[in-house]
Amino acid sequence: MMPEQLTIGEYLTERLYDLGVRHVFAVPGPFVGELIVRCDAAGLTVVRPIDGQSAGFMADAYARMRGLGVAIGGYGVGALQLVNPIAQAYAERSPVLVIGGAPGLAEPELHPLLDGRHDASPQRQVFAPLTAARAALDDPDVAFREIERVLAVMQRETHPGYLEIPRDVLDAAGHPGPAPRAAVTQSDPRALEAALNDATAMLDAAERPVMVLGVEVQRFGLQDPVLRLLANAGIPAAVTLLGKSVIGEEVPGFLGVYAGAGSRPAVRDAVESSDAVLLIGARPTDLNPGGMVPRLDPVHSIDARGDRLAIGYHTYGKVRLADFITGLAARDLRRREPMTPRDGEPTVDTLSDGPLTRDRLFARLASFLTDEMVVIADPGESLFAAADLPIRLCSEFMSPASYGARGFAIPASIGVQLAEPELRPIVLIEASAFPMTGAELATASALGLDPIVVVLHQPSEMHESLPADTIVRTSAELDVSLNEALDRSGSPYLLSVLLTASES
Amino acid sequence: MMPEQLTIGEYLTERLYDLGVRHVFAVPGPFVGELIVRCDAAGLTVVRPIDGQSAGFMADAYARMRGLGVAIGGYGVGALQLVNPIAQAYAERSPVLVIGGAPGLAEPELHPLLDGRHDASPQRQVFAPLTAARAALDDPDVAFREIERVLAVMQRETHPGYLEIPRDVLDAAGHPGPAPRAAVTQSDPRALEAALNDATAMLDAAERPVMVLGVEVQRFGLQDPVLRLLANAGIPAAVTLLGKSVIGEEVPGFLGVYAGAGSRPAVRDAVESSDAVLLIGARPTDLNPGGMVPRLDPVHSIDARGDRLAIGYHTYGKVRLADFITGLAARDLRRREPMTPRDGEPTVDTLSDGPLTRDRLFARLASFLTDEMVVIADPGESLFAAADLPIRLCSEFMSPASYGARGFAIPASIGVQLAEPELRPIVLIEASAFPMTGAELATASALGLDPIVVVLHQPSEMHESLPADTIVRTSAELDVSLNEALDRSGSPYLLSVLLTASES
Repeated sequence: MMPEQLTIGEYLTERLYDLGVRHVFAVPGPFVGELIVRCDAAGLTVVRPIDGQSAGFMADAYARMRGLGVAIGGYGVGALQLVNPIAQAYAERSPVLVIGGAPGLAEPELHPLLDGRHDASPQRQVFAPLTAARAALDDPDVAFREIERVLAVMQRETHPGYLEIPRDVLDAAGHPGPAPRAAVTQSDPRALEAALNDATAMLDAAERPVMVLGVEVQRFGLQDPVLRLLANAGIPAAVTLLGKSVIGEEVPGFLGVYAGAGSRPAVRDAVESSDAVLLIGARPTDLNPGGMVPRLDPVHSIDARGDRLAIGYHTYGKVRLADFITGLAARDLRRREPMTPRDGEPTVDTLSDGPLTRDRLFARLASFLTDEMVVIADPGESLFAAADLPIRLCSEFMSPASYGARGFAIPASIGVQLAEPELRPIVLIEASAFPMTGAELATASALGLDPIVVVLHQPSEMHESLPADTIVRTSAELDVSLNEALDRSGSPYLLSVLLTASES
Repeated sequence: MMPEQLTIGEYLTERLYDLGVRHVFAVPGPFVGELIVRCDAAGLTVVRPIDGQSAGFMADAYARMRGLGVAIGGYGVGALQLVNPIAQAYAERSPVLVIGGAPGLAEPELHPLLDGRHDASPQRQVFAPLTAARAALDDPDVAFREIERVLAVMQRETHPGYLEIPRDVLDAAGHPGPAPRAAVTQSDPRALEAALNDATAMLDAAERPVMVLGVEVQRFGLQDPVLRLLANAGIPAAVTLLGKSVIGEEVPGFLGVYAGAGSRPAVRDAVESSDAVLLIGARPTDLNPGGMVPRLDPVHSIDARGDRLAIGYHTYGKVRLADFITGLAARDLRRREPMTPRDGEPTVDTLSDGPLTRDRLFARLASFLTDEMVVIADPGESLFAAADLPIRLCSEFMSPASYGARGFAIPASIGVQLAEPELRPIVLIEASAFPMTGAELATASALGLDPIVVVLHQPSEMHESLPADTIVRTSAELDVSLNEALDRSGSPYLLSVLLTASES
């Protein structure tokens, strides 16, 4: 337990440390200078990207790996550059805490954005629709409680939160007060029982049941019961693009990525011809990346998400996602034949040398991946191609597949490697998106990080002066470069791939 | 007059053209693809920057030159990258119209940000505190009227506005309807008379009256009455940093930039020892850039702004800024001695060669400026140094001096040169801010624009590999490079200056 009479700055930074945070991503400025000093004193390493937007992407990636990320943004410029990344974190349920500074309570209201509207801070209004909980710590007496409330909601809903700290409040002493009441998040036992009975009946009656796993499987920690459903009942599983890597892909019964019309035919057929689709933490918006509209019949679906449970056309209130999935895994479901390993994979000749088509590039990359690597795919064509990369362990693949902010992957690789130093990030990014955040490779370099960045140039693109370590046109050149990249450590490796149009 | 039965897309783009817009700055995406095609068809050139934030900066700079700028941003990523620049445009009263796309009214609500909340669009909520008027064009029958309302409020208040257009509404036919009623923006004649009497009395009784001119002088078109006050009554004038260049600086009675404790001593003394300070369109937040707190006694101040008039401790409702300033200029104010040209300028030896200190660099730049150039200063130390650059004509200087978004200057130079092709932009930017938006020089190059970009490296900074046309360390090298830059046309010139610590 913490002693009494901590200051608000001390309490906040110590709580973040307790929750596993070791790095914060900050845009320095006059309203957060002191907060940054406090973070440093509490053992939180402060990372300062070149651009504010990058701080948001880094904190998002860190949160996806560790369950909590922190972006610090001042008042005005620094904080408002975080809006786009935080909207993405909201859409993809990544729990990023945004800490905004603010003019002190005792200061005149002279900020150009505030302009006399202190009690209706425009910045708080801007973040309102993009966060699950918000607090302005303008009353020291309840500040600890407010911090706990925001953190608790973020954890429960796996969404971003927002704290605004007037800069003269940091050193005020707070009061611990009584422990916050636990939020009411219990399932109603009888509603849960009814839902489990209905789901069991639908699954047992089906000939070709299938699971579709979304990113909430990871966010709500449901990997174990999901794997039990796979192993015990033998129900095969596809993942959404956003949910790719929520389970390892070498388990029997793993189908591949389901992305509506963008899926491989075998995966699409297995899902869309199924007579019982168990959707776990897969939001409708995640099922149609790039407008690839899915064809799922609600009457044959069990749609279980963090904030909703529907079986056929029935909806169920007061049933928690975790209770439902854990309960289902404990049921004695009808047992299916063990699945053969996934089939229908595209066959690409990866051995012979020749110009690199997109297919050949990804087949080659696939053979190169190990469990010590994490693939981070920027939105765009490379993301769809990356859908078929084989991922053996959980959390080996990351992409903003639902919201789709371009330029994410390079800053994200920094957040990922700080969160999990033993992983080597492989960044896949289109050449047209590279300049958006490519400058952050200098940040990676200063931190001693060593992402391998693969920049994909379309056949039609000009590439006069490429700022790359190597430029690659053939499979053989790719092999040489990837091995050279692996031999380097402590600084980024930048690899430009000039793609050839596919033969087909 | 437009014929009836225009579509909403036609009406909007034709109205923008009528209002002098020739370029729009767009982040392409599926929700604005068709709108961009309509813009092109209406004679509006579509500029596509590398990063969304840059589109906002470009549109802001264009609006500062032309009175209206347009940024197009889709739904989600593209639009939310505009938040930081639009907050700046709001704080500094630049009338930028943000056009956001949105899923069509007939489409399922599958956008990851929307997520079933179509009638409470999060994006509209985000822009609410940063715009003076907003409309969602989800009812074709009143869409023309809504467009006119937003444009009228933007013009009246010189603030940004926001239009959200569901993509399936563009081709719907609109209805002209009755002309919008004129907004009630007349002054109350008796309140105006009283205010003019009180202001005249204070100014005539004062021994050392002075004007402080803010950016609203330009935004509300008050240059003529201000120059009459200067010439007829002989009241000397300072400008705020944000208001620098609202009047030419070679007029008799021009004092220089007033920036609180950051002013030159002669300017600071003239303003702070005055017994009648006439503040015109200068907001309190603009008087203390970088926290340089001003010392002005309200009892000796006439504070006239777009939304407020105070004389001493009296405030006046229903008095329009333009009516008040025009009325004051028409009064027969006590006539002062003609002023001598401004004095107290720092004397720097600009002739001899030697390492470049910041003072020597700016003195040299000053001698190089002509009326065909516009200086665009990024926030930071270069901005304060640029305060003393002599500006002869209006609109020859631009800087986000109040809100202070770093990285503004390079995209802004693109907006400026598209708005006023006969002007050559000189960009001043710190090396630490350059990577934020430096990639947009490729955009400038593709458009055939030729800003001269001067990157300032602190003595303490490392500069291993500078991506510059030339690197300059001495006055003589600077001269050579500036002349080389002037000889180039049609593409940007990038000049890195390695500063030496000042001798003082």
